[in-house]
Amino acid sequence: MLKPWIEAQARLVEVAAGRAHADLVIRGGVWVNVHTRETIPGMDVAVADGRVAYVGPDAGPSVGPDTQVIEAKGRYMMPGLIDAHMHVESGMLTPAGFAAAVIPHGTTTMFHDPHEIANVLGLEGVRLMRDESLIQPISMFTQMPSCAPSAPGLETTGAPITEGEVAQAMGWDGIIGLGEMMNFPGVAAGDPQMLGEIAATRAAGKTVGGHYASPDLGRPFHAYVAGGAADDHETTSEAQGIARVRQGMGCMMRLGSAWYDVETQITAITEKGLDPRFFILCTDDSHSGTLVHEGHMNRVVRHAIACGCDPLIAIQMATINAASHFGQERELGSITPGRRADVILTSDLRALPIEAVIAQGQLVAEGGRLLVDCPRIDWPERARNSVRLGKELAAEDFEARARGDQARVRVIGVVENQAPTKALEADLPIREGVIEGSGDVCQIALVERHRGTGGVVNGFVSGFGYQGRVAVASTVAHDSHHMIVVGTDRATMAAAANHLGVVGGGVTVFRDGEELATVALPIAGLMSDLPATEVAEAAQAIVKAMQDCGCNLNNAYMQHSLLALVVIPELRISDLGIVDVRSFELVDLIV
Amino acid sequence: MLKPWIEAQARLVEVAAGRAHADLVIRGGVWVNVHTRETIPGMDVAVADGRVAYVGPDAGPSVGPDTQVIEAKGRYMMPGLIDAHMHVESGMLTPAGFAAAVIPHGTTTMFHDPHEIANVLGLEGVRLMRDESLIQPISMFTQMPSCAPSAPGLETTGAPITEGEVAQAMGWDGIIGLGEMMNFPGVAAGDPQMLGEIAATRAAGKTVGGHYASPDLGRPFHAYVAGGAADDHETTSEAQGIARVRQGMGCMMRLGSAWYDVETQITAITEKGLDPRFFILCTDDSHSGTLVHEGHMNRVVRHAIACGCDPLIAIQMATINAASHFGQERELGSITPGRRADVILTSDLRALPIEAVIAQGQLVAEGGRLLVDCPRIDWPERARNSVRLGKELAAEDFEARARGDQARVRVIGVVENQAPTKALEADLPIREGVIEGSGDVCQIALVERHRGTGGVVNGFVSGFGYQGRVAVASTVAHDSHHMIVVGTDRATMAAAANHLGVVGGGVTVFRDGEELATVALPIAGLMSDLPATEVAEAAQAIVKAMQDCGCNLNNAYMQHSLLALVVIPELRISDLGIVDVRSFELVDLIV
Repeated sequence: MLKPWIEAQARLVEVAAGRAHADLVIRGGVWVNVHTRETIPGMDVAVADGRVAYVGPDAGPSVGPDTQVIEAKGRYMMPGLIDAHMHVESGMLTPAGFAAAVIPHGTTTMFHDPHEIANVLGLEGVRLMRDESLIQPISMFTQMPSCAPSAPGLETTGAPITEGEVAQAMGWDGIIGLGEMMNFPGVAAGDPQMLGEIAATRAAGKTVGGHYASPDLGRPFHAYVAGGAADDHETTSEAQGIARVRQGMGCMMRLGSAWYDVETQITAITEKGLDPRFFILCTDDSHSGTLVHEGHMNRVVRHAIACGCDPLIAIQMATINAASHFGQERELGSITPGRRADVILTSDLRALPIEAVIAQGQLVAEGGRLLVDCPRIDWPERARNSVRLGKELAAEDFEARARGDQARVRVIGVVENQAPTKALEADLPIREGVIEGSGDVCQIALVERHRGTGGVVNGFVSGFGYQGRVAVASTVAHDSHHMIVVGTDRATMAAAANHLGVVGGGVTVFRDGEELATVALPIAGLMSDLPATEVAEAAQAIVKAMQDCGCNLNNAYMQHSLLALVVIPELRISDLGIVDVRSFELVDLIV
Repeated sequence: MLKPWIEAQARLVEVAAGRAHADLVIRGGVWVNVHTRETIPGMDVAVADGRVAYVGPDAGPSVGPDTQVIEAKGRYMMPGLIDAHMHVESGMLTPAGFAAAVIPHGTTTMFHDPHEIANVLGLEGVRLMRDESLIQPISMFTQMPSCAPSAPGLETTGAPITEGEVAQAMGWDGIIGLGEMMNFPGVAAGDPQMLGEIAATRAAGKTVGGHYASPDLGRPFHAYVAGGAADDHETTSEAQGIARVRQGMGCMMRLGSAWYDVETQITAITEKGLDPRFFILCTDDSHSGTLVHEGHMNRVVRHAIACGCDPLIAIQMATINAASHFGQERELGSITPGRRADVILTSDLRALPIEAVIAQGQLVAEGGRLLVDCPRIDWPERARNSVRLGKELAAEDFEARARGDQARVRVIGVVENQAPTKALEADLPIREGVIEGSGDVCQIALVERHRGTGGVVNGFVSGFGYQGRVAVASTVAHDSHHMIVVGTDRATMAAAANHLGVVGGGVTVFRDGEELATVALPIAGLMSDLPATEVAEAAQAIVKAMQDCGCNLNNAYMQHSLLALVVIPELRISDLGIVDVRSFELVDLIV
């Protein structure tokens, strides 16, 4: 474990003075200085107790018999990369698995908001994520989730997060601030719980993550800003990004697996020439496949450079800008004395090959290969047994019953490549008192899985294109993460749902009563124990299986997992019923 | 008193939303945005509870019957100016007097280090300065002095500052961090008290002021940086300034009454094009005359612009850069929601006329006129009666005795326009056992004044050019602030010293036993109760009187007050004797 700076101070002075030997010396590199925004050749870095002690022309006097020496050989020494806002659970990995996946890409710091597990396990889930984060060989700071449930009254989480819990968590080691305050209408309306959570965070001297997902830059925006959020990663246009920074917020430009918000905003710097210091890069959500095949923050920095950004500014946006934003500028984010010794060796600042990664003074990756262990906590029974169905589900549980021959029902209309759904209606046949899907309209069910109530809410969805007797089930079901089952056959839906009950959660595709593919996510029904490569492979198998079942929708699995997200219009499903998100109210299935 | 942000939050949201009325609205100005580094015309600012609630195109809905409206009429609305490092005592004013002098110049925040009073009254002096700072209508943050005495073993202060006191003060409201750590050899050598003071400051999450007054950028510099200082204002060249910033420190470029360190360093930005965010402007020391006749931070910003700096960057260096440095970026330093409403109205960003000043939402100055009261504390007896001579001094007290007809003595050689002195020697006549000055060599005495010991250390000085029977005495006597008396006649020296004992300290010039001019500084022997204009006038009279006595040295009074500064070479005087600052040891007067 890294010592606090104050415990390392005396030794850092001795090493810097040349009176004591360093643990590690990196020799002969080009110093990428993010304070001055310049590169300085011919420099050595001496490290002691995981922190930089000295950066200068000659660390020779600090080299002793036990000092590890890494020859930079004229390569760039740049600060390890920082992801300023992200959700570990999006990778279907625990903090350890995520760290193992991103370290070879040069990520040495993450600010992550365990919003998903908070919806399943409440504060205990946050604590577990924090616990595993704190033991990683890189720096993982946890943001306390602010909004669980996301939509009070419209859904039931595993355990709600209270204002008191937010205040309590602010006293925990490793909690860096409040996770994205997504209840922006609440803040703008002066909701006491939302303002209270923000105030508790500010009282602790910590940073309030924002989330203002609206194009409206009028009064609601100004009221949200006045509420105290310090940043926003939901901006998607140059005008929106600039508006945030002008108002004193950090603009977090994200490039996630499905977010492409850097190119549209970076013109604020590349064309408008604004001061870049409050622009920050992040990923928000990365799937395992992206981590395995494309990268992490190195991918974002490369992309920013490809968008025309000066490489040194792009690196600042993924290092010191993020560190400063969270009040950590004296702790990390640059290769300067006292900071955590997080260093990437690369021979090209544009192509950014990650040739070696040093985190907290330890060589953690070389040539894309992880060299260290990322320890896991012993996840407790409560986390490993989070899928509580209460009973074995049967085909009958998925019956939507009505009288007569036909019913006019609400249908959730999935729109390709869009998060919002359409509130459609369809006339569906009734057979033996049960409404049946027809054509592209198939069944959707929300299976309660936190308290074992046996509750199943049934509805209809269109747009997936499933053919034959198919069911897809997932316990990744934003934001309250019950279980969403979509299918054309009730017995197959029951089989898929029961299978997830057995494996402890995950995603599964069934056809004709048989399992085609499964990603088991036994930790909170959200995360796997396996490495990213295996999770990515299993996730790819899910995509393939869905396609085999007739679904050719782009990002079909993501669409599936968002169908219970009762904060994005128009029509969604929750454990409480069908939700019209235009009016934020529960509505009847039958019109 | 300004409410903490968390108590204002709910009302800020209401005002920003247009649902509640503001206390103040500034209408129709050009917003100087230091976050994006741009100007935005046609903007309104709404203020509630002393903080910015809204900045946008129309604050109309926030204007109620009790809302004060200021028409900007197209002028620039720029953030109030910040002095990032300074000593209030240098103006011979208390915090109230200093605030009153600088508010009309647009200064709304000061980070001040009461190092001088700490040398006289110890921690109690710091607390008194903090107390008066906290009740000002502008923001005055106090840095806890780190080094009193500056030179342990070579001088005796009124009360030493201990490591425990530093740790204690870090818990006080209004203490922003540690004042300049000037014992740079101690830090570099690993002195436990110095490292301990820094560690206590860092443990409190506060900022460590630095002071590395050496051109050596080798190992001692690196060791000092590793010790944890966050900034330095002692840099005087571009290379030195850049070296600090590269190492992760803030470079504070100063323009004081006698410091001209902006022009030599700002080329790092104007020519080298480095990122300016860690470059900061400050004054360090301003005399009352400078405040009255030239200005304060507005003078520094104008000077930076005159040196070729982009006006917006210059303004950033005196606003948000300083705020960020002290971790106050979300509290002040820009005109954005939540921050203290510190606004200057000016019609020209280059000439920078300070047309109106708003501090914490209150109009505090207009057209150079102060509109508010700057309250004073009731300075206690201990502070007002700090000149303790222990007895009435007589001519005999100023006798340096020796045997024989002549003695070879050490002489402090004052060099015009230089802080260092020369260690000279001279052969002086002895009459009736007393060494007599001769030619330009006259007497200097250090009169103990903290404990009333009656102690007088006698020596000789050259360079002032006094003629006739003259004495100049001052209780401003850096750093331990005993009393320095320079004179050509022992009875006149005694009269001058006794006079300062009667008025409670200050500076006085006597000739032929009569008072020519006096600045009374009854608070700790350092500060006046009077306004800056009167202090400046009195100080001018001192200069005139010194000239009348034959002294034509530039800045003669400053030279006088620095003769006990036993940290700057070569020869000085202290209450313990004559000090050779080249070897840091006490030496005999007679060679």
